[in-house]
Amino acid sequence: MNYCSNCGAADLRTEVPKGDTRPRLVCGQCGDIHYRNPKIVAGCLPIWEDKVLLCRRAIEPRAGYWNVPAGFLELGETVEDGAMREVWEEAEAKVKIHGLQTVFTFTKYWHVYLQFVGELVDGKFGVGEESTESRLFSEEEVPWDEIAFESSRFALHRYFEDRKKGEIKLHIGSI
Amino acid sequence: MNYCSNCGAADLRTEVPKGDTRPRLVCGQCGDIHYRNPKIVAGCLPIWEDKVLLCRRAIEPRAGYWNVPAGFLELGETVEDGAMREVWEEAEAKVKIHGLQTVFTFTKYWHVYLQFVGELVDGKFGVGEESTESRLFSEEEVPWDEIAFESSRFALHRYFEDRKKGEIKLHIGSI
Repeated sequence: MNYCSNCGAADLRTEVPKGDTRPRLVCGQCGDIHYRNPKIVAGCLPIWEDKVLLCRRAIEPRAGYWNVPAGFLELGETVEDGAMREVWEEAEAKVKIHGLQTVFTFTKYWHVYLQFVGELVDGKFGVGEESTESRLFSEEEVPWDEIAFESSRFALHRYFEDRKKGEIKLHIGSI
Repeated sequence: MNYCSNCGAADLRTEVPKGDTRPRLVCGQCGDIHYRNPKIVAGCLPIWEDKVLLCRRAIEPRAGYWNVPAGFLELGETVEDGAMREVWEEAEAKVKIHGLQTVFTFTKYWHVYLQFVGELVDGKFGVGEESTESRLFSEEEVPWDEIAFESSRFALHRYFEDRKKGEIKLHIGSI
């Protein structure tokens, strides 16, 4: 951010506004405070029989690595709708959502992942524009060294652990 | 947003960027795409014995109405830390978080509430700067007609229903 989006001045200062406790980007001309907040990444781990569906990322960051289908939540959509949209965009698959399984905060990158678990509606899937490959993996087949993000590793480990105990739970993590 | 925060030009257009499917605010001069995303509101319903702690809002929107302590998640904090900070700021209370209880999307206002349930550590609470009053309410005492936001009404109704069944669950809602 180089210019104030309200008045156009190149006079942005980092200071603690009156009544606030944190440094913000404040315009020295018009006084506008430019708040920044973490973004939501909505996703869903699609399940089919005893396997999970992962996508190999076509785009950076972490192009070439496998990931649970997920992406930035858009204005106007619910978290569940965002998760289902991402599964469709990345894996051309339809899921019936069972429940929220992972809330994972990346404190350095200002992303909060909200990931559901859902079942493929008809077992069908494809390869979306942001993927180069989609594949069903059993627990033994998961390419642990080629997982894109810690949020996916966290979700997958806990999903398989919970499944052995017969109950898929919500897990909260951060890095 | 009147000016491009990257180059300062007053030439922002709403258009669908190449490779995208949604209209974005794009700068006609430098081409910068200004994405907007929903914000996270982190909160926690504090419990003490058979009562819940609510705060009467000192600030708009909905000044004068009662609310579950909650506020915008800040950069660099986890959702849990944000929730505990908000309880401290609004009710000067410390909570031990039990679990996530509500995920509630306001699709028109672009806010996603992530609300935990937690127990007051020592039963103590006060009145933070953004509140005019804090009070413990039993279910019968909750001022249903004076609740600030639908997210709080949703969370409170489900909390009391679940408590009767002996298990506090996660509920997902939207409006």
